Order: sequence, then structure tokens, then C-alpha cells
Amino acid sequence: MRLDVQLRGESALIERIAQKTHDLPCAGRVAVIQGIGDDTAVLHTDCQTLLWTADMLLEGIHFRLDWIDPHSLGWKSLAVNLSDIAAMGGEPTGALLSIALPRECTGEWLDAFIEGFIECARAYSTALLGGDTNRAEQVIIDVSVLGVVSGRPVLRSSAQSGDWVMVTGALGGSRAGLEALLAGDTAGIDLTPHFRPAPRLQVGAIARELGATAMMDLSDGLAADLPKLLRASGVGAIVYMAQVPVHPVALHWAQTHSLDRALFAIAGGEDYELLITAPPAAAQRLLKEIPRQAGVPLSVIGEVIAARELWLEHPDGRRESFAVAGWDHFTV
Amino acid sequence: MRLDVQLRGESALIERIAQKTHDLPCAGRVAVIQGIGDDTAVLHTDCQTLLWTADMLLEGIHFRLDWIDPHSLGWKSLAVNLSDIAAMGGEPTGALLSIALPRECTGEWLDAFIEGFIECARAYSTALLGGDTNRAEQVIIDVSVLGVVSGRPVLRSSAQSGDWVMVTGALGGSRAGLEALLAGDTAGIDLTPHFRPAPRLQVGAIARELGATAMMDLSDGLAADLPKLLRASGVGAIVYMAQVPVHPVALHWAQTHSLDRALFAIAGGEDYELLITAPPAAAQRLLKEIPRQAGVPLSVIGEVIAARELWLEHPDGRRESFAVAGWDHFTV
Repeated sequence: MRLDVQLRGESALIERIAQKTHDLPCAGRVAVIQGIGDDTAVLHTDCQTLLWTADMLLEGIHFRLDWIDPHSLGWKSLAVNLSDIAAMGGEPTGALLSIALPRECTGEWLDAFIEGFIECARAYSTALLGGDTNRAEQVIIDVSVLGVVSGRPVLRSSAQSGDWVMVTGALGGSRAGLEALLAGDTAGIDLTPHFRPAPRLQVGAIARELGATAMMDLSDGLAADLPKLLRASGVGAIVYMAQVPVHPVALHWAQTHSLDRALFAIAGGEDYELLITAPPAAAQRLLKEIPRQAGVPLSVIGEVIAARELWLEHPDGRRESFAVAGWDHFTV
Repeated sequence: MRLDVQLRGESALIERIAQKTHDLPCAGRVAVIQGIGDDTAVLHTDCQTLLWTADMLLEGIHFRLDWIDPHSLGWKSLAVNLSDIAAMGGEPTGALLSIALPRECTGEWLDAFIEGFIECARAYSTALLGGDTNRAEQVIIDVSVLGVVSGRPVLRSSAQSGDWVMVTGALGGSRAGLEALLAGDTAGIDLTPHFRPAPRLQVGAIARELGATAMMDLSDGLAADLPKLLRASGVGAIVYMAQVPVHPVALHWAQTHSLDRALFAIAGGEDYELLITAPPAAAQRLLKEIPRQAGVPLSVIGEVIAARELWLEHPDGRRESFAVAGWDHFTV
């Protein structure tokens, strides 16, 4: 019977995943009462403020199996969700993994995927608590993560005029990797930023503690994401293009393809760096403490202004009004 | 730019969903601090025990667009998750909706889908708090629901020898609908059980309060799900086939196709009724209170035994050992 066969396959799959993940640590003030194996996961927490997010990764849309190895895909499917928790200043507790696999994905493929997922889960103390498994024509991954936060989470909507605009790490590395894959020419290109983003959880927590006013993670590129934060906060900004930290891989790509390095970097995507605003005094604390405590560079790239406009200031002092489709669309 | 276009579409989609759902009630001891529109949803709760589940619905695997209307699909994609919360004795608080849509799905289709989702959300006081939206070749839906429970949730793993085995409602109605759709002959067949299951939230809460020992929802059919509960509890059962409540639609289908009605009903799927065990005294309370308080029938269909075996007792008194693939596979 179709149902039985399917069920047997599904149970075997779930057992396989459960065995590999049952000893994952669970951070924060949360105890797992029931993980994989019942109708729902059961969690006990004494923390009252919960963070909750989900992100889909679809074959053919977000990744290609002939490009990304399953271990990296496992890492990335959790990491992109943890990045959202980081952007609120919280810490993750657990994840649900919904995954659909075509028949071509062997046990070996799944094992490597789960190993990658586990590596990320272990690095950031996130338990795998359940989910759903299915057959499909293509690989479909949807991960949901639940986190907790002490005190108030840092929303997108509270940037203030006069705040400094900052980003962690460097931008455009993931996009350069993607461009190289699309061009079929990855020789000398480091694909790590594209395949294995590092969620900035420690940075997010420090930023929350030390007075960041607004924060979000960069998943669609600064040029697309900054307008979202500004719009949510009802403000505008000037971005100093000379100060945009360009990832070495992006720099290499821009140079070899005669592109403006900073424009290439801000039109990236999947950076999974944090975009942070804070008033000058708090910003100065962040600029000192984030590199010191988390070992992650933090750069000031601009300033929040009251007018609901976005300006790019080029190295020669020329200011250009920045009106991306996204920005126009969002303008209220 | 590809990214901008995609982004604009996605933002419009999210706005559309957010506008329609912003006033959904949120049950239980939970306040929504931030719903759709930030990196994560933010919830405030004074309830310490959380329930968390996710279920995927995939076009071509779980449904066909030429069979199910978008309104029913919206209802069902939330309802199947609420059924898992019901099976723990909890109440839902909110949902994340991850959805990928092909270009053929028009705004009208999406509106109907969201209306169906909202109808279910409103009926069971569940807020829509976020999720993810994408383009894909086929419709992909993954819903995650967070619930709370007062006291201890009812797990699958605590059925005791001597307990009575009970089910809510009647079985096989959804399967009969599916068979009719597969046969291309739905004349005179009520597809409601297949398209719009009713999560048994009130029943689940009553069962928890009045002493159910174990509980789960029937998503793969009694013949597949009962073995899971028995295995988790380390016990066996006898099922009295004459007492299995057969849904009128299943009865009609079995009769017109010369099938054994009870066998057809227990080999169903997507019933989304609750399977409940309780010692005789508590069972008698449940048999009285569940129909009275929740208006849902409850039937005793068997008894838990210490031996790890599953027996079907036919109306003529003959006992048949029930060894489905799933059961064999799970036997420890």
C-alpha cells in the first residue's frame, strides 16, 4: 500500500534524523520536555519573550544541487534562520526542520545534509525538536527557529535621526560567489560566504545590551534591506560609499569585471551580516566592544536623517538620490 | 534587476497577507509584541509550557490544484497543524506561514487561500505572525504553529495496560473523498472531511483535564497511527472492529465498492480525529463530558494490553493479528 511504504520511508528518515540530533544542546532558559517523536515538541521556559521565525530554501530558486554540497546546504538552512534571531538580539533555543526530498537524494546525501545542520546547531546551541518529512520532485527545506530574548528585542522600527548606520563584517562576498557560479567560473573564488554564512548571534546580543536602536540582518543586500529598516522607522539615511566594507571576494570579482566595488557590495544578497543603528555614544561603545568581544569587524557606513530619503555619498563628495525599485515601492 | 523584481513581488505579497490578518485574535496567555514585518515575530507569554509543530502540504503530493479550491486549502493547511496542538491537550497561539507560489496562482487565488486560512485561524483563535514567501514551480506550504498548555501535555508514550482506546468523530470520510477524487467520480460524495478537517482542540483540552493517559491525532489512519502510540508506550492493544465509528461517506464508499467498512475506515488517512487512551473510570468521564461539552462523539474501540501485540477482533469474535508494515518496522 502506497501509504505504508511512504510511512515506512518517512519513519526511517525521522529515526535517522532523531538519532543523529538527540544530544544537541539547547541554549538559553529553555528545557526540552519532548523533542522529535510526538505530535508537537514540548518546551519549558522561564523566559517570557519569545522570538520566532521561518525561512524556506527551495531547489532551483535558492540553490542548485550541482552547486552546493549537502553539508553546506544543511549548515545554511539553519544559519539563515539563526541570523534572524541574531537580528533581534536574542539567542536561539530550537528548530523544526521540514524537508522534502526527491528519490535522487540518497541516504548519504541526507546524512551529509544533517551533519551540516548539526554542525551549525552545535556551534550556536540550537536543538532540533521536530518538523516534517516528505517526498517531492525537488528539495524543499523550511526551517523554523524559536529563540528567547532577555529584555527588549531590537526591532527594525526604532532607528532615530542622528543615529549612526553600521554593518558587521564585509558585504558582497556571497553575491560574488553566486555570480561566479552563474558564470560557471569559480576558479580562485572562495564560496564560503555564499555557502556557509555565519549568523552574528554574539554581535546581536552585544548590540542589544549596549543600546542599538534598530537592527536587521542583511538577506537581500544592503540596497534592498536598508530601505526596509528606514521605512519601518519613518526616517531616511545618507550612506558613505567609501566606508562600505567590501568583502575580499567581492573586491576581486568587481575588479576583474570592471564594476564599482561599493555598488556591487551593497547590491549583494545573502550577506547575513547585521545592519545596526545607534546614537553616536552607543555606536562608539559598539565599535569598541563588538570587535573585542565577538571578534567581528563593525563599520560605520552612514547616518540616519529625519527626511525620508536615501542618499549615497560617493568618495568625491557627490550625493546621489538612491531610488531602487524596492525603495519607491515602499515609500509611504 | 531580478532581485528587485522578486523583492517587490514578495513585499506586495507580504503586505497583502499582513493587511488581511492583522486583527486575528491570539488565544491563551500570549501577547503579540511584533507580528509580520520584522526579522522574527515577538511573543510575550506567562505560560511556561510551549507546544511547537510544523506540517508541509505539497502540490502533487498532498493535494492537486484541480481538486481542492484555494479557500479549503488555506483552511486545511492551518487545521492539520492545530490538530497536533489538540493532540497534546493545548491551545494554539499563533502560526508562521511559509508559502511558495507558481505564477499561475493569481492574486484572486491567493486571496481565497488567505481567506480560508483566516477562517480557520479565527475559529480557533490563532494569530498569523510571520513566515516566508517565495516563487516556485508548484505550490509549497509549510505552516508552523506555537501553542501553550496548562499543566502537563498528553504525550503518546504514556498509555497503560487496561486503558480503553477511544476515537473522536468517525473515521474514513477523508479517505473516501480522496478515493472518489482519484477515481474521478465524486458524484454524491461529500468532500468536506477531506478538504476541511476540524481540529479537535476543545476535545483535546477536556481529555487532558479529565485524565487521558495518551493521545495523538490521526493523520495517517488508525491502522498506521495506533501502532505508533502503542510502540511509544511499550504496550499493545485489541481493537473491536464492530465498534469502529465509520464515517457516513466512508460507509457509502465501502458499500458501493464492496469493501469491509471498518477495514476501509481504519486504513484511512487525514482523519484528524483524536486517538485517546484512559483508564476505565477516566474514560467513562470522557465518554460523558466530551459529547456534552464539545458536541463531538467519542467511541470506545478497544483496550490496551501489556503484550506488545495488536489484535483486530472481528464481529464474529475471530481475532486477527495485525501486522502492518509500519507495525513490523517499528517493533522493538
